[in-house]
Amino acid sequence: MASIAEELAEKQQEISVGEFFERNKHILGFDSLTKALVTAVKEGVDNSLDACEEAKILPEIKIEIEEVNDREYKVAIEDNGPGIVKRKVPEVFGKLLYGSRFHEISQSRGQQGIGVSAVVMYGQLTTGKATIVRSKVKEKDYANEMRITMDTKKNEPEVLDEEVVLWGGKEHGMRFETTVKGLLRRGKHSVFEYLKNTAIVNPHARIEFDRDGEKTVFKRATDQLPEKTEAVQPHLKGIELGTLAKMAKNSKRRTLKSFLKHEFSRISYSKAEEICEEADIDKKKNPSDLEVEDCKRVLKAAEKVKLMAPKTDCLSPIKGMLIKKGLKNVLKGQHPEYYAPPSTRDPTVYSGNPFQVEVGLVYGGDLPKEGSVKVLRFANRVPLLYKKGGCAVTTAIKNIDWRIYDLDQRGGKGMPSGPVVILVHVASTRVPFTSEAKEAIADIPAVIDEIEKGLRECARSLRTHLNKEKKRRKVKKKFTVVNDILPMIAKKSADIVGKEPPELSKSMTKIMGVVYIEKGYEWNDGRCKVDIDIMNYTPKDKDMNLFFEKPYPETELLSSNLEPDYQGDHLEWRLEGLKPSEKKKISLEFDGDLEKDDMAGTEIYIEGVTETKLIGAETLPDDWDIELAEIEERG
Amino acid sequence: MASIAEELAEKQQEISVGEFFERNKHILGFDSLTKALVTAVKEGVDNSLDACEEAKILPEIKIEIEEVNDREYKVAIEDNGPGIVKRKVPEVFGKLLYGSRFHEISQSRGQQGIGVSAVVMYGQLTTGKATIVRSKVKEKDYANEMRITMDTKKNEPEVLDEEVVLWGGKEHGMRFETTVKGLLRRGKHSVFEYLKNTAIVNPHARIEFDRDGEKTVFKRATDQLPEKTEAVQPHLKGIELGTLAKMAKNSKRRTLKSFLKHEFSRISYSKAEEICEEADIDKKKNPSDLEVEDCKRVLKAAEKVKLMAPKTDCLSPIKGMLIKKGLKNVLKGQHPEYYAPPSTRDPTVYSGNPFQVEVGLVYGGDLPKEGSVKVLRFANRVPLLYKKGGCAVTTAIKNIDWRIYDLDQRGGKGMPSGPVVILVHVASTRVPFTSEAKEAIADIPAVIDEIEKGLRECARSLRTHLNKEKKRRKVKKKFTVVNDILPMIAKKSADIVGKEPPELSKSMTKIMGVVYIEKGYEWNDGRCKVDIDIMNYTPKDKDMNLFFEKPYPETELLSSNLEPDYQGDHLEWRLEGLKPSEKKKISLEFDGDLEKDDMAGTEIYIEGVTETKLIGAETLPDDWDIELAEIEERG
Repeated sequence: MASIAEELAEKQQEISVGEFFERNKHILGFDSLTKALVTAVKEGVDNSLDACEEAKILPEIKIEIEEVNDREYKVAIEDNGPGIVKRKVPEVFGKLLYGSRFHEISQSRGQQGIGVSAVVMYGQLTTGKATIVRSKVKEKDYANEMRITMDTKKNEPEVLDEEVVLWGGKEHGMRFETTVKGLLRRGKHSVFEYLKNTAIVNPHARIEFDRDGEKTVFKRATDQLPEKTEAVQPHLKGIELGTLAKMAKNSKRRTLKSFLKHEFSRISYSKAEEICEEADIDKKKNPSDLEVEDCKRVLKAAEKVKLMAPKTDCLSPIKGMLIKKGLKNVLKGQHPEYYAPPSTRDPTVYSGNPFQVEVGLVYGGDLPKEGSVKVLRFANRVPLLYKKGGCAVTTAIKNIDWRIYDLDQRGGKGMPSGPVVILVHVASTRVPFTSEAKEAIADIPAVIDEIEKGLRECARSLRTHLNKEKKRRKVKKKFTVVNDILPMIAKKSADIVGKEPPELSKSMTKIMGVVYIEKGYEWNDGRCKVDIDIMNYTPKDKDMNLFFEKPYPETELLSSNLEPDYQGDHLEWRLEGLKPSEKKKISLEFDGDLEKDDMAGTEIYIEGVTETKLIGAETLPDDWDIELAEIEERG
Repeated sequence: MASIAEELAEKQQEISVGEFFERNKHILGFDSLTKALVTAVKEGVDNSLDACEEAKILPEIKIEIEEVNDREYKVAIEDNGPGIVKRKVPEVFGKLLYGSRFHEISQSRGQQGIGVSAVVMYGQLTTGKATIVRSKVKEKDYANEMRITMDTKKNEPEVLDEEVVLWGGKEHGMRFETTVKGLLRRGKHSVFEYLKNTAIVNPHARIEFDRDGEKTVFKRATDQLPEKTEAVQPHLKGIELGTLAKMAKNSKRRTLKSFLKHEFSRISYSKAEEICEEADIDKKKNPSDLEVEDCKRVLKAAEKVKLMAPKTDCLSPIKGMLIKKGLKNVLKGQHPEYYAPPSTRDPTVYSGNPFQVEVGLVYGGDLPKEGSVKVLRFANRVPLLYKKGGCAVTTAIKNIDWRIYDLDQRGGKGMPSGPVVILVHVASTRVPFTSEAKEAIADIPAVIDEIEKGLRECARSLRTHLNKEKKRRKVKKKFTVVNDILPMIAKKSADIVGKEPPELSKSMTKIMGVVYIEKGYEWNDGRCKVDIDIMNYTPKDKDMNLFFEKPYPETELLSSNLEPDYQGDHLEWRLEGLKPSEKKKISLEFDGDLEKDDMAGTEIYIEGVTETKLIGAETLPDDWDIELAEIEERG
């Protein structure tokens, strides 16, 4: 028997990281020819965007794909980023697990130092070709260009040759060109789709795609860079015991209190003391003397003591307005009936990593009524095209019984169906991807929970909208009935008794008892005309304030039949003494770079009518207090 | 600007493999507390099974789980394998990417040398505790026991202490005990479910599960070890260009011809010559002189030249009988109406790796009619419990329009629903898992394709069965009508004309025109009584051979009212001169360790009646030629 144990022992040996990933290239996103091409582009573009943002440069990225052979493509990615200093180029491109962001807690697209070197490795594995990298930093007059391969056995770069080149007026930037086996497809999982979705959530980037000479440009939609995310310290809540123990052991702080204050985010001296007390450990204890049991007590204490949520400036959410814009971009041509107000959840933590979830939802209109809802997934502003089935976003959607939100869903389980597009963005200093291919988010309960909450927020808005629509339709029907039949009855009765038909408006307002608001849109030469009809179908005189939300703060009001009492992000009117049965019309005209969908999301708010008596508009939300006060002052 | 490129350069550094996996523990299967516990058990059991099989030992594996603290469990796994020699223990358990099977092409559960050391790492990260490993090889009288941790920064083991212990009579084996943060759940994704499914596809193993003192034993169902799989050489078809180039460069063979013959599987000298010719390269060329372009031509040639499929003795499929047994095991208590003959596909290759797909399908009976079909996924005899959504098995199932096989499926897409259980096993020298957690199979087109083909085979059998059932029901209805009404009409007519009712059997057989076979079962004291009714409802005399498939070759026939003309894997009768309207009954009694489902899969075959005139049985399949010849000889 020993011979077998000994035999096995002989075979046991260390496995090289390079060979490991070479063999397991599918976990890096190279599991099919179509996907390989998307992955190659994705890794390059992610890197370029990260580098540009880090250097506060508005990204200009050019992607070229050229078929050089059957199932063999030359892929080049060029950016205007800061460039990479020459001595670092070989390792950045020719060594796996080499990078700048692994030990930093901040939101970035790349983190592990695998992506772009995996592309180099995949290219050489499938086509035998080296990758050509060109880089220019600002203070050099020339660029450096090298041909790089990777020695996978050693996981070390090999530079085949290098030269100095002039780069026609380019101030700084990077370009790499690699040849990979692949298949260029159109459709849902294509390079084009990836770039389009990237443009949606990175409106500050200009992206040019040259596919065998056929050019597409995704223009920059804003000149504003996303807020620079800051690297932060770990958050004590949710950190692993082993990580805490290691940090304590290596700490140079002299007391536990000071260790907690200085090496974790959101812990003040007084909080640190509170934790020490709760954990029943001397606050003056040297952190490197902490036993595992002590660390355990610290973690338990951290659960009990109220700690501030992690800092948010390490995260860069897309935010409501941009989510709406992004969705509009995708839906070009289709006009949904309703945009739910996007939900940007408060940042929270999983295993000590801050993360933040954003959800957008669009309903109805031209969207296809049949089939599953469409889902757009993003993580740290990177679109996720593959592995939908294995993603926390899908899990969260499936966890919800959408039937209570008036969507169709077989047995209250699985994907709901209907005319809906859902956008989910997870931003984190460490997105828990299921694999190194970064295609799907792992089913971390805390993450699923946040996504669910965001989804429910949007779903509730949708339900409210659908209910309101139902109610409006019902009231409208009642209107028709009352308006048509009541006068007929009155006339008939009057005829019989030989009298004049009575004045009916009072009875009608008594029957209806509501203020009815209707808005309509019309487009002409890029201008948008909005008509708001306000009808007082109550038996009393009414005073009210009407608030109209503009689609964008900068949208210009060209004309109005009734001068607003306030103009800003929204328009306000004071309407006084509206008599029973009296109608008022407000006709507006807006300037127009507006698209049809821009108006669909706008709301009318009314102050002065109770919710139950208001049809076709919202009562003023509570958080609009300030504006209300202003109008009262002006009034 | 250089300051930024320089600033970035300063941050760029090597990332430790240990820290990489520690940070990305979710890709190793530790993404939730419940799953962490399943993963810890799974990695240990996989290792034990591999070691036992390699040493040709019938596995006896004991798993103990004990809750030692809130969300903290002690997990111990013990086997009777060959043990690990002392000097290798630290690295096997305390170093990632260290193992014996990475460089070997053979079917085994573990391959990457990550699994069990990841458990050690996870334990120490979450509970701060070291792992205790005990190992005994046959020729030592004592066992070695050590406490091991991992220095993740260096990816090296640390042995905290070691001692020599006596292991009460145990000849050889291994035990490791680790403490991990986790959550022990029951249900679909539980340790119990994992072990149960493991037992299904590893009937040669005895598995004992002790959960906080509550013991379950999965008994050994066979004493036969799976056929020992052999390590093979790579197959030229589908190998990556880079891999071929590297092999050629490192080859010690002196000619291309000899290189192809000796370093690849299934290439003879003449095939090697054919490839050289097709590639237009001198067969005497030294392989280390091959350029990338030459390698490319060799690969192209390999596509054109007909190569034998990869050797199958490196794969260990479960095989039909065992698949059926496995399914029965899961369905204990539920009695399906139909077991489709399991499909064991021929082995094929993806990227040079042999793989083989097996599919089983069960339908109807007590299985729940509502909801999605149930899917059991296995890879190299390891059950896959998680990531169903992101698995090639699910993709393949969803790719099929099941409506053409009479199953319910919304829009012909997605998971079908109905009373169906599907079992899919993928065996490969390298299963393309989506991540290191080995939870799902990547969407490799060749693999999906094979799974689809296996599924379709089973689905076609199901459709045939359902059609036949439909036809049988229809004919039975016709029978009833003809049997009931014809005599009544005859009597009425006879009454009217005052004559005796005519002999009807001839008219009846003319109307029916079929041979009708019906079988029924009855269980008594573990014995199974089978009645076969053969009715000749044709207007002619009939001779036929009837074949009855026994559920198992060893199933013993206790009695029969009609002596079979042949007894073996099946029973045969020669039935001669069956007159129109004549019925014959064969009553059998079988011995019985038989379960109810064992009979459900058996078939009756008839030789001598054309298919269109046969109801309730099959015509003899073509591949039964041999038996047919035998009977003809005997006849």
